[in-house]
Amino acid sequence: MPPKPDIRAVIMAGGSGTRFWPLSRRKLAKQFLPIVADRTMLEETVRRILPLVPARRIYTVANAAQTRTIRRLLPGLPEAHYLVEPEARNTAPSLILATARIHLENPRAVVAVLPSDHLITAGDVFLRKLAAAAEAAAAEDALITFGIPPSFPSTGYGYLRYRKGAARTFRKEPFRAVEAFVEKPSYEKAVAFLKKGGYAWNSGMFLWRADVFAAKLERFAPEFFEAWTRILAALRSKSRARVAAAFASIPATSIDYALMEKAGGVLAAEGDFGWSDVGAWSSLAGIWPRDADGNAFKGASVVLDARNNLAYNPGRLTALVGVDDLVIVNTPDALLVCRRDKDQSVKRILELLAARGDSECL
Amino acid sequence: MPPKPDIRAVIMAGGSGTRFWPLSRRKLAKQFLPIVADRTMLEETVRRILPLVPARRIYTVANAAQTRTIRRLLPGLPEAHYLVEPEARNTAPSLILATARIHLENPRAVVAVLPSDHLITAGDVFLRKLAAAAEAAAAEDALITFGIPPSFPSTGYGYLRYRKGAARTFRKEPFRAVEAFVEKPSYEKAVAFLKKGGYAWNSGMFLWRADVFAAKLERFAPEFFEAWTRILAALRSKSRARVAAAFASIPATSIDYALMEKAGGVLAAEGDFGWSDVGAWSSLAGIWPRDADGNAFKGASVVLDARNNLAYNPGRLTALVGVDDLVIVNTPDALLVCRRDKDQSVKRILELLAARGDSECL
Repeated sequence: MPPKPDIRAVIMAGGSGTRFWPLSRRKLAKQFLPIVADRTMLEETVRRILPLVPARRIYTVANAAQTRTIRRLLPGLPEAHYLVEPEARNTAPSLILATARIHLENPRAVVAVLPSDHLITAGDVFLRKLAAAAEAAAAEDALITFGIPPSFPSTGYGYLRYRKGAARTFRKEPFRAVEAFVEKPSYEKAVAFLKKGGYAWNSGMFLWRADVFAAKLERFAPEFFEAWTRILAALRSKSRARVAAAFASIPATSIDYALMEKAGGVLAAEGDFGWSDVGAWSSLAGIWPRDADGNAFKGASVVLDARNNLAYNPGRLTALVGVDDLVIVNTPDALLVCRRDKDQSVKRILELLAARGDSECL
Repeated sequence: MPPKPDIRAVIMAGGSGTRFWPLSRRKLAKQFLPIVADRTMLEETVRRILPLVPARRIYTVANAAQTRTIRRLLPGLPEAHYLVEPEARNTAPSLILATARIHLENPRAVVAVLPSDHLITAGDVFLRKLAAAAEAAAAEDALITFGIPPSFPSTGYGYLRYRKGAARTFRKEPFRAVEAFVEKPSYEKAVAFLKKGGYAWNSGMFLWRADVFAAKLERFAPEFFEAWTRILAALRSKSRARVAAAFASIPATSIDYALMEKAGGVLAAEGDFGWSDVGAWSSLAGIWPRDADGNAFKGASVVLDARNNLAYNPGRLTALVGVDDLVIVNTPDALLVCRRDKDQSVKRILELLAARGDSECL
């Protein structure tokens, strides 16, 4: 039996989502909102992994303002584990920084990269698969991920395509080789993917051993490997200015684009643990309990001839009469009423407000 | 030239409207809300007539709780003029009480009965017509009213049918004889009325000399005349209990049904002064200013692809995305989102809340 891997979780909490406005704000992104449970999504993310990863092995990555919120929500992490992004530069720089930080402590530690704003309903299944993935990452020179079984031809997610052939098994969990990462497809392509089979949604969750990550960078992403060595040196120097300078030198791109899409040897387990990225208000309609007419509420409600509405209005009564397919979000200073299939347009509302200099509710 | 009539205005403020929920409540009816202007409809009603009827000649009729609100909103009336209905019994008992009260002071006084929750946009036209109507009431043995020129085949109003023939003129204002009062018609009948001509909406505003009112009761509504004499005697006795007993003995019906529909000699002037009874939220869409897409707001707004909505949300931002024809009303404890053509169903929401014992927001 292999030794138990030294798992370090890196919780990515730097997202600045606008799609849950008016509940989410510039300074209060989705991960800091209790939209799927009584606790914030960030807290849920940490609670979920605690049986496998103790708090002393958990890190967060976010900007300085977000980190203040994180310290308040997650007061139990080691002081040095609240990693602050010197600036917003997408996920590649942040994960190079976090992995380098962990590499200094233990090059063979397994880094589990977890978004802080995803929903997982089958937490026990997830934990089991996470343990298996950590074992795979510890044992193999491979980057590990989860492929979400696609439930519809989404054009909002990237896909991974499995290579044909036998799966490797860790802790009885099959891991299949990933042949390619595919960018968000057209609707026609997405339909074809589902028909053909062998495709899964890119979950954005990754595991790697710190030294394997470095080796993959060196081989598949040399320009990022240079940054990696600069970051390592800067961290060793303990100079915040040097770390910031090294960080700023890394191209502002996603880790998917920087490494995952290019690297060989990616393995994926099936992410069949009730995953949702909770991309917009309407996605909560599948998560909150619904009444017989398909209405879902946070807060008291009274309904007359109304179907498939979603209303967030905690502490107040929401009365619906003769309306269908609406998203309604009421906050102390702003009320949103939106057609359910238009909830991706909420960010345009923020642009409109910003354009007219109306920053109060942003 | 005839002597100037002694006009007394009786402001009927006892209505318990439910159709402006959640802004209106059991204890806060439409007349106490600032829904068409910055002041409440009751205050607007009084302000409108002050150039013709000084405060010392204005009376209000409402129940005890409402009268407390009225005293606060209209502190300038004589103490004895806040007439309290011993119980809610529709308009006939209240107007018999009020007219009897005025009859004791001056039998030849002209009583102008004015609902407290109607909108009149052309206040100057209204005042001129009110003065003419008062002169007609002073001079004639007639009940006077205003017929509202119908702008659409409404099934929500009663109608009056004019008698053919020449109009009488007072202060250059023509008054036509009313042949009949017609109850709320079917849609087909309403269409026929408009096509045929000679019909007007019953405005619910009436003028009569106190002694003429008594004489009409005696002739056309003898059972109400008995009550009238009991009320007069009770008022003379100054016994509140006797007044309440006499009041309770009057059939709980409308003055329209008790007297107007039966009495001969009703004259009506054209009520072309921008009248609206503001019957429900959607009627405000014709009153509040609208944007180019037909949206009307109280409160700040931001709109994306949304048309013909009405939102009451003062002090907060309302954001609409992709929605049409909604009525949205946000209050500190309840939010209503209603299809505009269903706003008459709002009272059913109140029934649903009451039925489940949820009285907090009623």
